[in-house]
Formats: sequence, structure tokens, C-alpha cells
Amino acid sequence: MSPVYLVGAGPGSADLLTLRAARVLQEAEVVLYDRLVSPEVLALVNPRAQRIYVGKTKGEQDKQQQILHLLLSHARAGRKVVRLKGGDPMVFGRGAEEWLHLAQAGLPVELVPGLSSAVALPGLWGIPLTMRGLASGFAVISGQMQEGAVPNLAAYAQVDTLVILMGVERRVELARALLQAGRPPREPAAFIENGTTPSERLLLTDLQAIAQGRVEVQAPAVWIQGSVVGVQQKLRKTKEEYVVAV
Amino acid sequence: MSPVYLVGAGPGSADLLTLRAARVLQEAEVVLYDRLVSPEVLALVNPRAQRIYVGKTKGEQDKQQQILHLLLSHARAGRKVVRLKGGDPMVFGRGAEEWLHLAQAGLPVELVPGLSSAVALPGLWGIPLTMRGLASGFAVISGQMQEGAVPNLAAYAQVDTLVILMGVERRVELARALLQAGRPPREPAAFIENGTTPSERLLLTDLQAIAQGRVEVQAPAVWIQGSVVGVQQKLRKTKEEYVVAV
Repeated sequence: MSPVYLVGAGPGSADLLTLRAARVLQEAEVVLYDRLVSPEVLALVNPRAQRIYVGKTKGEQDKQQQILHLLLSHARAGRKVVRLKGGDPMVFGRGAEEWLHLAQAGLPVELVPGLSSAVALPGLWGIPLTMRGLASGFAVISGQMQEGAVPNLAAYAQVDTLVILMGVERRVELARALLQAGRPPREPAAFIENGTTPSERLLLTDLQAIAQGRVEVQAPAVWIQGSVVGVQQKLRKTKEEYVVAV
Repeated sequence: MSPVYLVGAGPGSADLLTLRAARVLQEAEVVLYDRLVSPEVLALVNPRAQRIYVGKTKGEQDKQQQILHLLLSHARAGRKVVRLKGGDPMVFGRGAEEWLHLAQAGLPVELVPGLSSAVALPGLWGIPLTMRGLASGFAVISGQMQEGAVPNLAAYAQVDTLVILMGVERRVELARALLQAGRPPREPAAFIENGTTPSERLLLTDLQAIAQGRVEVQAPAVWIQGSVVGVQQKLRKTKEEYVVAV
């Protein structure tokens, strides 16, 4: 039986897929894809493959059961099934849960990693996650929590570079919690909206401005918090319309 | 003038390069590459390109000046220059320092991100960096410090999943520091040696065993510390010779 391929689509641009992911998409017979997979990436899918959109929006949590059911039934029917997720399947996004479900049903899974937006987008914009003298490490968390709880920020607030995915909606609350945990008010921050798409935009600001509700930003965006953001303007001369300093 | 391309080679396997990286390598005229770039990746380089090995070993820190000089002189001579680094150029590895140097000299730089071993290798082995109920985030640090100091572990010791790159040599010292910071002695740990190469190997162990000096592991290896390691055996049935439980 063919394994189910759990494939990372990367941040959006089709040529940021891995060679392996592109090959697997070309050989696919059924592709189940998420909301954050770009049209450009979908254009790489085998034209004879069946494409099934399984993106979730808020309040559609029961859709997860349906996804698992679809994966199992297509795989058991002997088709070459690809589960395509934005970014990397094992960084948020429930990739491991789907893998576990398939493994428990006796189906082999093959992972094809993708570029996580948390790592690739800052780099593309000239924001290093680590840099000698500025940041000896980084952490990645999600700002979107279940049951409305603030994430366990205490464990992450002291790291050098903090990357927050899905943090746009609750940015004021999160920024206040980071200030309270001792991060400096004027520490630089960046949001990268719609990374690698035509409407991509970089916002440069600081922690205090976010906490005061002065930063307008639209999801999806990657939030980078830390001194490394200060390097950006030295590395990449950017078209002014894409940079919004607050 | 052509920009200098700062390209991530990913963890080792050639088909884990991005499509963009593969295209840039095929168009290159000069490629400066590091020690951790695999022969398989180098085989993708334009056969007419000049290849310059600039890998550093211990005590060769002055080589960095030489690399910067080479980058500048080839770029100024109008050649299409690629600086090829293992993993992602902006995660450790001094990518940002080289970019800064080139930018200050007035040369444009184009980044092509690569899969960081810290994220891709755990996933390939069935170790998710995040998973609902087990890990709401992760951090990445380097175990190789300048001046022999222990890294600023206090800021990273409480995160859910901790990934340590270049930590093999000082693993006993680092594990003791993590125990002292309150991580549980029996918390599972994994080392992935020589990821994506034919001599790849997974070691499953726990924090206490590392601290007691009972874990034999060879560099290069990625060390994953956290409950998520406990999921591995449920996700990926692995050939026994590759798994060494301690």
C-alpha cells in the first residue's frame, strides 16, 4: 500500500517547495489541502488528481474528524493520497495528530517537510533568527489558544528572538503579557503579512506600540519580537510602500 | 550587478532543497560552500561553476575574513556568486553577518531559505515540535558557545520542546544544567545523527541518561528534548538498527 504523504507546502511561493514535495504532488492521485495553501502551489499538483479542499474556519472543529475519515478511505481504496499543509506539517497545524490517527489505523505515513513561515519569512526579509551578540536562540509559539487562554508565555518570554504565529488577533493582550514579563517597551518588532504573496507587507514597530493598540495588521502574519528586528534595515533595502514603521 | 545569493542547502538530502535553490545553483558561476553541505547537494551545482570549499574547523576563525573577501571580490568581478550553507542561512551559521558585510559594501543580497535541520529532521523521524496537549511551542539553541561559556539556558529551559544544535560535545554539561533548571530526569530525549544521509541514526534516551554520561552519540546530531519525543514510536515504525534506546 502506498503511504499517505504528509507534505509541507511552505510559506506560499511555489518555488519554495522542496524538490521532493514537488515530485510527490506530481504523482498524487488525491490531494487534501488546507486554507493556507496558495493557488500557485496547487498549480503543481498532478492535473489528473482529485483535489479536496478541507480548510477549517472558526467553529468548524468537527471538520477534523471528516478530514481523518477522508484520508483513511482514500488511502484504503489504494490511491496515492497527499495531505498538503501550509508551512511545515509538524509545526502547529495538527500534522502529528493526523499522522497518529493514520498510524493507529495501520497506514504508513511519509513526511515531506516544508519551510515553516516562522523561520523562512523573517530570513527572506533580512531578519535573522539568531545572530552573534544579538540572539543566541529563538522560540516559536502560537498566539491562537484553545479555550481563550493566554498561552504559557512565562516559559517563552525570556528567549532572545520570539516568533509568534497566529498572533494577530490577540496581539495587544500578548504584547502586554510580554511587557509584564520584562521585555523592554522599545524592543523592535516586525509583522510580515501575507508572506511571499503579491500582497506581502512588512511592518516595523516596537512592543509598546503593539501593547497600546497602535499597530494595524491583518492575518495571516508572522510576528517577530526581538533585537534582531533592528538588523532588518541594514540588510535589505526595501520598497517603501512595503514598510510601515509605526 | 547580480545579487549575491545566500542559499540554504537544507539538512543534506538533495531533494530537500527548494526548487528556487536548485535553480539558483544551476545558474551559479561561483559557489562558496561549507563543511556541512553534502556531496549530493553539490552535484546540483552548474558543472561549469567554480566551487570553493570554505568549511571551517576549530581554530580557523580567521577564515571568516577570507570568506568575506572571496565573496566581495567574485561579486565585484561581475560573477553570479552563491554562498551555500547547510540548513537555513539565517539560523546560526553566520548568514546574517555575511549579508551585513556585503550590504555595507553596497552589494545586494538575495536570500534563498533552506530547511533547518532543527525543524526538518525531528519531523522526518516522527517527532513533532508542537502537538496539542504535549507542546505549545518550541525553541532552538546552539550548544556550541564562544569562550567556553554555558549558553544562557535559563531563558530556554522551561520551553516545551527544546532543540539543541551543535550540542553533542557538551551534552553532559548541558543536560545537567537542564535538570538543575527543573526539567524532569525521565523526560524523553532524542539525537538524530547524520540526518538524511546513509549513516543516519536515531537515538532515543532520556535527560538523566545524558546527564550521567551514558549516551554515546557522534556529531553532527540534532538533540530534541521534550515530551514530544515520546510520540516517535507511535508514528514511525523504524528499522531497529537505527534506533538505540539507552
